[in-house]
Amino acid sequence: MNQHRTVRVALLGAGSVGSQVARTLLDHADELALRVGARLELVGIAVRNVEAKRDVELPAELFTTDAKTLILGADLVVELMGGIDPARELIALALGSGADVVTANKALIATHGLELFDIAERVGAQLNYEAAVAGAIPIIRPLRDSLAGDRVDRILGIVNGTTNFILDRMHTLGGTLDEALAVATDLGYAEADPTADVEGYDAQQKAAILASIAFHTHVPVERVYREGITGVTAELIDEARTAGYVVKLLAICERITAADGATESVSARVYPALVHAQHPLASVHGGNNAIFVEAASAGSLMFYGAGAGGVETSSAVLGDVVSAARRRISGGPGLRESMHADMRVADIGDVVTRYHISLDVSDELGVLAGIARVFSDHEVSVLQIQQGDGAVPVVEALEQSTEDTPAGEQASATLVIGTHQATERSLQAVVAALESLDAVQRVKGVLRVESAA
Amino acid sequence: MNQHRTVRVALLGAGSVGSQVARTLLDHADELALRVGARLELVGIAVRNVEAKRDVELPAELFTTDAKTLILGADLVVELMGGIDPARELIALALGSGADVVTANKALIATHGLELFDIAERVGAQLNYEAAVAGAIPIIRPLRDSLAGDRVDRILGIVNGTTNFILDRMHTLGGTLDEALAVATDLGYAEADPTADVEGYDAQQKAAILASIAFHTHVPVERVYREGITGVTAELIDEARTAGYVVKLLAICERITAADGATESVSARVYPALVHAQHPLASVHGGNNAIFVEAASAGSLMFYGAGAGGVETSSAVLGDVVSAARRRISGGPGLRESMHADMRVADIGDVVTRYHISLDVSDELGVLAGIARVFSDHEVSVLQIQQGDGAVPVVEALEQSTEDTPAGEQASATLVIGTHQATERSLQAVVAALESLDAVQRVKGVLRVESAA
Repeated sequence: MNQHRTVRVALLGAGSVGSQVARTLLDHADELALRVGARLELVGIAVRNVEAKRDVELPAELFTTDAKTLILGADLVVELMGGIDPARELIALALGSGADVVTANKALIATHGLELFDIAERVGAQLNYEAAVAGAIPIIRPLRDSLAGDRVDRILGIVNGTTNFILDRMHTLGGTLDEALAVATDLGYAEADPTADVEGYDAQQKAAILASIAFHTHVPVERVYREGITGVTAELIDEARTAGYVVKLLAICERITAADGATESVSARVYPALVHAQHPLASVHGGNNAIFVEAASAGSLMFYGAGAGGVETSSAVLGDVVSAARRRISGGPGLRESMHADMRVADIGDVVTRYHISLDVSDELGVLAGIARVFSDHEVSVLQIQQGDGAVPVVEALEQSTEDTPAGEQASATLVIGTHQATERSLQAVVAALESLDAVQRVKGVLRVESAA
Repeated sequence: MNQHRTVRVALLGAGSVGSQVARTLLDHADELALRVGARLELVGIAVRNVEAKRDVELPAELFTTDAKTLILGADLVVELMGGIDPARELIALALGSGADVVTANKALIATHGLELFDIAERVGAQLNYEAAVAGAIPIIRPLRDSLAGDRVDRILGIVNGTTNFILDRMHTLGGTLDEALAVATDLGYAEADPTADVEGYDAQQKAAILASIAFHTHVPVERVYREGITGVTAELIDEARTAGYVVKLLAICERITAADGATESVSARVYPALVHAQHPLASVHGGNNAIFVEAASAGSLMFYGAGAGGVETSSAVLGDVVSAARRRISGGPGLRESMHADMRVADIGDVVTRYHISLDVSDELGVLAGIARVFSDHEVSVLQIQQGDGAVPVVEALEQSTEDTPAGEQASATLVIGTHQATERSLQAVVAALESLDAVQRVKGVLRVESAA
């Protein structure tokens, strides 16, 4: 190692992740120098307010409000300020000046990644963002490098710790979503305004990033179909449990082959889905994240770990910093993101899944026959009907319906109907048609099944 | 992309992995060219016998027995012949000629990795070996790059599919080890001579590789303590289940801090150990592999997937090929393995764990008191004693012993004694002392506890 060689590191932002990264760069400078083959010198930390109170104590002389001057004096810029502006402009400035960039900014990569990758490629700089998805869990690098010779077919990701904490608590301890959210807020798992997590916007950005890398296709955030978890009731979770499933908010990225067998498209979507209780994702508890990848040769892989806490995320950021610095020292330019496949991004209507539909119906003669007709009219076949506490195959259910219910009696019953695979379009049409049936009092919930056992 | 640029790839070996790799290079040449930015041209396949029957059909004109000439005409050499000789010499030749090398050869990396990394560094070539550990599961790259800025404290790996299949079958379906091994052989999970798997030699090599990368310290294979699974009886598995554990053959790599708080050493070891039923590793079934990593900032991570089948391993090999080729095209030299930490490799005696000791004892007055004295003499404290079907705290057990057993009666009883943490040295001494007690008829088995819940 050349003892005199130095990589000048500039930090943008000193929040929970930034202050951890700064602390590690200062406290473990000798160890990091050995790993890199050059010293990583923290030359400054750009913040909006130099006087603000920090989580971690850091030398006052490092702070500056002049991000641009700091960047132009750095070899490697670590952007941890978050948000689109001014992060976008500052990263572009850094890359344009030939500095390598490490960021944890999922919103920026998801929305403006392509433009930043282009700048990086043009100047031969590196842009690393392992921390943008699933905190410390290595997933960007495995998808980009380790699976670079394989064909990824599907990704199922639990990529939002807040919603996993809420759904896991509802599943294991019972209670309503609001109760679980209140606990998540108390424990620091949810922010004061939980909208980005609970409504799936955070997971949507991560799905866009994962789909883009996995399928070598630019997937814009706005093409990622999104539903949050606010419609998940305690009753839906109980019904899922009875049927052998767990409800998880999933980011799903999938390669869809058209009926012609040739045209491929990419689907990326986020919604609460049913995961079979025996599937590895079902046992991801609390605020943890996990990403399940199905590839043609590798088979099923899972990457599991803590969600995005400040300390955990700093691990991913520093991994990117060390990798970028080693690369800088060894002299090679960065690897561009490969977007050559450029597949069509599928509409949500084209996606094929299975539905579990939870209904309140009038408990009267002929109800099941009417419901069954709705399914057959839309060419969706029914796998099972669950009434009360047991599941019965559909034929038996139809027979019971005519035998057991005296005509004219007007009670109410809950049915959970599990379908075979069909397109989202057909399944949505079935739900709309069910809602218009007189005998259907209410469609209480619809959950997609995204994993068999 | 430069349409005319080509990376000449030579393949050494055409077994189950090699023939898959060749097939993919030929069948997916266009897609791979887009990913790399240059064509990967398979220039030849070196084999011992050109006429031998292959798993997969490949063009006859690619085969040659002249590995050296093939290597000298290649930019990238993929070694999949296995074994030490002549793989070692051929890889050295390839690296020395400036070619990048990808290998899945765990035995070679574990025993001669250091010498090969030195050659690679000297000439600025890349030596990738993701496929050497845990088949398609990305673990080398995450440890080397993603966790490059973190401090790995511990790795618990299920890295041998054969033994996991056997132990999982014994746990879930019952039966003896020989019965489970026979099934594993029938299903192709075990080789005709299962010694390397069953005796832990395969896991030992992988442990040496993982420990070396994780701790930036060269850990020779022969310094990895090793016990196979042949001593794991159906009874030991039942006792483990009763106590809430699953038996897994683990490769364990651990940073050990001495009592002085300053000196650190590395322990690498392989043995059947107890994993708590709620630990993520406990639900790794069949022939699957999983690697659980504990790092200072990242916390607990787990990497899960299929073991080393031919197709799965080809995924890891091709990931390395694409990465190396991209890197070659972009112009940078390889990253050397970082061995700067150079910590002491700990003796097995220094390792701190907990023991579950299974004993047949004479069921007579004072037996427990005598046994308890052995533990206290060696300053090992007892956590619980399990007799028959229930676990009782040690104090109660001692009281029951004197109360319930009429003097002079000479029956036999089984005890499973769980200890608190102690050094392997102390625990071994306890076992030796127990064996010499008159009242102890037989020490039936000793299993270490490597995971709490």
